[in-house]
Order: sequence, then structure tokens, then C-alpha cells
Amino acid sequence: MRGFFITFEGGEGSGKSTQARLLYEYFKNNGHHVILTREPGGTEIAEKLRDIVVRGNKQLNIYTEMLIFMTARSDHWFNCIKPALDAGSIVICDRFHDSTIVYQCICGGCDTYLVNGIYEKITNGTHPDCTVIIDIDPVTGLKRSFAKKNNTDLRFENKALEFHKSVRNGYLSISKSSDRYLVIDGTKSEVEVQTSIIQELRFKYLNNFN
Amino acid sequence: MRGFFITFEGGEGSGKSTQARLLYEYFKNNGHHVILTREPGGTEIAEKLRDIVVRGNKQLNIYTEMLIFMTARSDHWFNCIKPALDAGSIVICDRFHDSTIVYQCICGGCDTYLVNGIYEKITNGTHPDCTVIIDIDPVTGLKRSFAKKNNTDLRFENKALEFHKSVRNGYLSISKSSDRYLVIDGTKSEVEVQTSIIQELRFKYLNNFN
Repeated sequence: MRGFFITFEGGEGSGKSTQARLLYEYFKNNGHHVILTREPGGTEIAEKLRDIVVRGNKQLNIYTEMLIFMTARSDHWFNCIKPALDAGSIVICDRFHDSTIVYQCICGGCDTYLVNGIYEKITNGTHPDCTVIIDIDPVTGLKRSFAKKNNTDLRFENKALEFHKSVRNGYLSISKSSDRYLVIDGTKSEVEVQTSIIQELRFKYLNNFN
Repeated sequence: MRGFFITFEGGEGSGKSTQARLLYEYFKNNGHHVILTREPGGTEIAEKLRDIVVRGNKQLNIYTEMLIFMTARSDHWFNCIKPALDAGSIVICDRFHDSTIVYQCICGGCDTYLVNGIYEKITNGTHPDCTVIIDIDPVTGLKRSFAKKNNTDLRFENKALEFHKSVRNGYLSISKSSDRYLVIDGTKSEVEVQTSIIQELRFKYLNNFN
């Protein structure tokens, strides 16, 4: 793997998808080979799986839900992320394995050890080089998210506020487990958040981008 | 769980789907509550996953393939098999977890320990009461299978003969690991195979069916 792998994480309405796109444009305008992708999704099969889990109001058992995400991740890894990293690209991914750890393990009760075991087998132990966690108070985040999306796509937003508080705490808790996490204050303006991310990335990984 | 759970296993063209159906009819005609289902499949979500993995000629990584089967199993377990067993029914399932152990682990190289770990979490350690393995020489089995199916549904049949020999050996090998396996000679006529299965079941589990 010769490329650089950046993932964006955060609760609903944190602005991570916007920031992932802005960072993609920044790298592209600076002449880097860069791809922007998302989870669940990023390949034909993974998008089909996304439809099953994100749309609709079906009650899925938490293990079924976790396995759908892991299946999508596996296809996405082998057919999109890994080849791009092997070819030397910067890969920016909107949500990745930390989402599963936070939503399905910390908040949903799936066995973290088992879920990480599946991940290690898929990726052969490869982790993102950097994970940007955009931190925001869930009340503010949910207001943004409901204002933006249509009604069919709100499976996770519709959960109780307590759940979203656990998501935030889950991210803040895992952010302490490795150097690769950057926690960014998501309440500031779009441009301010973008500037913080780029500054932190350039400070931390200067040699990777010049 | 108050019901009785019977799974059918075997290579392509072994006749297990036919025998699963015949056993279903036998129990039904004898006044039992019985359901017949299959894997991958048996629920709306699992049938969608079946389409991804069984149809088409896409090259799937073996971990993606395994995870699709485990996801389908999870939904099938929680929404079909477990409720039926809890209600006291006999459940007959055409393929189940042993298929994943044989095809994706023994023959495909997935980590058996990990895959069994996923299974244990889904089912809380519940295993079939009886697994009928219909044993047949792969050359005979594949001839039957190609004669019967259409061309879009042959993802597994199209693998090399060596693969199918490993499948047979895989089943024979796991059949020694537990008392719940019945290995039945699949080269005999449909009626003879059916008679053997019913005789063995009545002999082994007499108290469960009277």
C-alpha cells in the first residue's frame, strides 16, 4: 500500500460528508491523485447492501445490521479502496470501520472483539492513516440532518436522542485509542472546519502530501 | 426452543433439495407442524443477498462471499427459523451453516474459528438437531445439476471438479465431528434415499416425532 487513507467519522449532521468532499477538492486542486468514496457503498454490491440497511423501516437484528456493513466493507475494500491505495492514490472515505464499532458495537451491543476480528481478516490488518472525527452536539447535528434529507433515508436519525449521545461519546472514547484520530469541532462554519482539518493534516502528515 | 431443526447438506446435484421437500411432505402428511426453507434465502432480505451471490459471474472475494452468507443466515435465523422453532414447529432447511464451513472455510480458506464465532453470536450457540448429508460422487452430482438448472444460476457448479471433490471430502470430514450428522448414500433412487432418511430419523429421534 503506497497511498494515503483518510476516513471521516461523526454523528448525524456533523458535516462529515461535506468536509470529505471539500478535502477531496482541495487535494484534487493541488494535483494529487485522490478518490472520494463512502460507506456503506462505493461498489455496486455495497450500494445494494446500503439500500437494505439505510432505507426503509425494517427492524433488523443488530447482528444482521453489523454483518451487512461488514459485507459492504469487504467488497468496498477489495474492489475500490485497496486497489486505489496500491496504485498510490489518496483515498477519502465518508464513514468506515469506526462507524461499525461505534454504532453497532458500543451503542448496539455487538461483540467488538468479533467485529474487529472480521475487519482484520478483510483488510489484513490495514487501518486508515488518519481518521477525522467531526464532533458536534447531537441536538445541533440532528436539526441539520432532518433539514437536509428526504424522509426515506432517516433510519439512523430516527433513533432516540440518547442513542445519538452514545454515538458522540463512543467516538470521543475511541479517539483516545490511537494517534490516527483528529477530533475537529463541528459547530464552526464550513470554511473554518475545513481550514482546521487541512492545517491539522499538514501539520501531522506533512511528508505525505509534498 | 421447543421444535426440531433438520438441515440438509451435500454437494451440487446430490438431491438434497428434493429430499428436503419429500421429508417436509412426509411430516406434513403425518400431521406435524413443519416448515421448509432454504439458504441462502428464506426471508426477503436473505433472498436479495442470494441473488448477489448465487447469480451472475462476479468474482467475489472469499470473505465477501462468506459474509453475504452469514448476513443472510442472521436475517433468516431471527425472522424465520428461531420463531418457528420457538413455536414448536419442525423446521427443515435446505443448506445451513455447514455449507459455509465446507464451501467458504474448508474449500475457500476463510478462518473457521472466526466464522463459527459469528455463527455462535447469531444463534446463541443453537445447532441443528439433525443434519442429513447426502453423499454423492461429484461427477454424478454435477451431471444431474447441469441437466436441471438454467444457465444463470450456476456460480458454484462452474467451479473445477477438484473443488467439488474437496466439498465432498469436507462434508465427510465434518460428519465425524458430531452425532447430529446422518450421511446418506445419494446414488440410490429418490424413493430409496427418502426411505433411508426417514428410517434413520425415526430410529435416532423416535421420541421427537411421536
